[in-house]
Amino acid sequence: MTLAARAQEPGTTHVIHPGTDGSGPVKRTVLPGGLRVVTESMPTVRSAAFGIWAAVGSRDEAPADAGASHYLEHVLFKGTRRRSALEISAAIDAVGGDLNAFTTKEYTCYYARVLDADLPLAADVVCDMVASSLNRPEDVEAERGVILEEIHMRDDDPGDLIHDEFALALYGDRPLGRPILGTVESINALTRDRIHAYYRERYVPPNLVVAAAGRVDHDEVVRLVQEGYGDRLTGDAPPSPPRIGGEPAPVSPTVRVLDKDTEQAHMVLGGVGVSRTDERRFALGVLNAALGGGMSSRLFQEVREKRGLAYSVYSYTSQYADSGVFGVYAGCQPGKIDEVLSICRDEVAAVAERGLTDEELARGKGQLRGGMVLGLEDTGSRMSRIAKSELVYESLLPVDEVLARIDAVTLDDVRAVARDVLSGPQALTVIGPFGDRGFTL
Amino acid sequence: MTLAARAQEPGTTHVIHPGTDGSGPVKRTVLPGGLRVVTESMPTVRSAAFGIWAAVGSRDEAPADAGASHYLEHVLFKGTRRRSALEISAAIDAVGGDLNAFTTKEYTCYYARVLDADLPLAADVVCDMVASSLNRPEDVEAERGVILEEIHMRDDDPGDLIHDEFALALYGDRPLGRPILGTVESINALTRDRIHAYYRERYVPPNLVVAAAGRVDHDEVVRLVQEGYGDRLTGDAPPSPPRIGGEPAPVSPTVRVLDKDTEQAHMVLGGVGVSRTDERRFALGVLNAALGGGMSSRLFQEVREKRGLAYSVYSYTSQYADSGVFGVYAGCQPGKIDEVLSICRDEVAAVAERGLTDEELARGKGQLRGGMVLGLEDTGSRMSRIAKSELVYESLLPVDEVLARIDAVTLDDVRAVARDVLSGPQALTVIGPFGDRGFTL
Repeated sequence: MTLAARAQEPGTTHVIHPGTDGSGPVKRTVLPGGLRVVTESMPTVRSAAFGIWAAVGSRDEAPADAGASHYLEHVLFKGTRRRSALEISAAIDAVGGDLNAFTTKEYTCYYARVLDADLPLAADVVCDMVASSLNRPEDVEAERGVILEEIHMRDDDPGDLIHDEFALALYGDRPLGRPILGTVESINALTRDRIHAYYRERYVPPNLVVAAAGRVDHDEVVRLVQEGYGDRLTGDAPPSPPRIGGEPAPVSPTVRVLDKDTEQAHMVLGGVGVSRTDERRFALGVLNAALGGGMSSRLFQEVREKRGLAYSVYSYTSQYADSGVFGVYAGCQPGKIDEVLSICRDEVAAVAERGLTDEELARGKGQLRGGMVLGLEDTGSRMSRIAKSELVYESLLPVDEVLARIDAVTLDDVRAVARDVLSGPQALTVIGPFGDRGFTL
Repeated sequence: MTLAARAQEPGTTHVIHPGTDGSGPVKRTVLPGGLRVVTESMPTVRSAAFGIWAAVGSRDEAPADAGASHYLEHVLFKGTRRRSALEISAAIDAVGGDLNAFTTKEYTCYYARVLDADLPLAADVVCDMVASSLNRPEDVEAERGVILEEIHMRDDDPGDLIHDEFALALYGDRPLGRPILGTVESINALTRDRIHAYYRERYVPPNLVVAAAGRVDHDEVVRLVQEGYGDRLTGDAPPSPPRIGGEPAPVSPTVRVLDKDTEQAHMVLGGVGVSRTDERRFALGVLNAALGGGMSSRLFQEVREKRGLAYSVYSYTSQYADSGVFGVYAGCQPGKIDEVLSICRDEVAAVAERGLTDEELARGKGQLRGGMVLGLEDTGSRMSRIAKSELVYESLLPVDEVLARIDAVTLDDVRAVARDVLSGPQALTVIGPFGDRGFTL
């Protein structure tokens, strides 16, 4: 199904996937005001995941607003006209559910996971938080301290910090390069009025997707959302289009070295990967699996299994609307950093030049296939899948279709994407007790 | 069901729980040699979790063996007569499964999670690893470097390190006080012969439990284990009894301050809790939920919600055969440590003196109930539950029975356990840039 075929008129419900063994149909309704509701029924579970997703993330922030999306995510837990912060959390704690939220560079999600009988409660609480947040000045102030502590906690964990530093090394001071958390300076500078304006501008019905998966009934979810949103659901605004295409974000790969008194040296080496809708993503997934995606991968075998140089070594991909990242991480003794870096470079170069073996291709495909199916057994991952199909994909690619695309990947496809991705400009970030020592690409 | 009623004779299969809505029966077979097989069928899922659990953990180590259980866990991935390290990991990667292991103070677990059709493969690989590990000298050497890196990685993450330091503050240099990873010195001193002897002594059939959950058939699992273990399953040795009772581990609570150049100060304050089979554990669970177990808890509200002093603040319990831990963690600005510590102490003292409110009691029970049911939807947690019932409990407490015990907790029960646990000797650990500043209890 293409974007053009997506129903945009309010009030109608469409079955966008008929369902398969183990899951019921995926249904979609556009409510007045442009709010979308998507659900996937999983009749054999006893729980439900309910989430509201906003098409807002750190890449939407002007430099002066850096960290506003994530700051706002915190403030939405602080109270509405109907509920204090304690009443929000107590409602879900009382039924043993999870209530949480996360912010990425491209979207923000608020969700609850509860027993199926508690779905009406979960929907009421999450809708209330997202639709009716007061963002009181005193709450914004108290939460400023919490965010600053979150930044300091990230700074104390070099295995976490390195990924923010790497984004900066790769994209520079541009939207995709800046940290989701913001900086101490930007958080201290954000005012309540700015946060509240950001909320009023961004959290409008066309930017929001409600998604539910588990033992749920679509019509009931639609009704719960209508009750939760009340008279905000008016007008004939269409849903915002998914965040796709656009110009690739400009990159300025460089070397960043952070001198820090750590026991281990931490490094990420990598470059620009592929965007979320790039057809090469399946081939890159297979490549990533074989190079550094599991214990049988080349990097794990060479760095850890044979030489015992690292506990943690892996490659990874991230996808955005118009760009992506392919990176290799390792943590090792500072005195071994050159050896580890050299092995990682050699393995990347070997794959870029010669691609994979038949066996690696088959194993990489199996790894993606099995991982995908196993990863869709819980309600939370099903809920995320259908929400993201609205927010950042042109359509919901059925699981069978994804599996078919993985199966279709050839050695030539992998060689081509390896050449494209691994031979492009690379960035390097190193954290460790290196004083003013330099590193070169 | 009591220990006395457990069948110990080889070759017979017993239904130890008839199953309820959403799960099939739990069945148990004792094989010749004393190896136990327990399974729980979950007919609506498409995957299976298969694990082998050894009743061996760091508390079984003599001081000279410190870290041997965990070291051995790593070495078991390095190769058997039939498979190299690469062949072990490649087999499970090829079907997209997870293969992993973990070591605790009281047991060690090796497990795979796969699609149901791949269960025979998973059982073959995990049985091979655990039953036929070669523990070659060169593999033990290579893995020494990996373990040392794991220790350094832990040292670089103060939010992780603090829990090992707290165990030492509470239990001193005794089995429960020593870190599971061992120390740089003990790992450097462990020889291949010592590791191999530890394996041969400890990984004998009576100490092992095979557990599987998901779309599994008990008789098939028994057959797969018999094939995997082959002629090692002989004799009429009974299974080892569960690790229960015994004398409480002696404790020597104290104050430990680690001067470290971190952004945040990290602290754990706590004391001895209750053992795994202590009847007070349900009341302590409710107390923990209300004091620091969720966003609506007193500690979260006072430290984070109202004052914005921390991002992460919580209380927790750990249980062992004859002891337990109740602790409070917070990470905050070093300059705020006295304020945070004072709030935590006040909240602990208030609960120790006056117990909970009716509302907190009800919410704490709901939190435990819902969390338990939601936590048992995946095959891995079901597999763990039935394995631990063999290794560390006297019997498998059915889920309904656990829910009934939670429901039965009264305000007086909570007050009594609060008095017992929170008024006992306390230990305190602090990590941060404190130079030689002292802290007092």
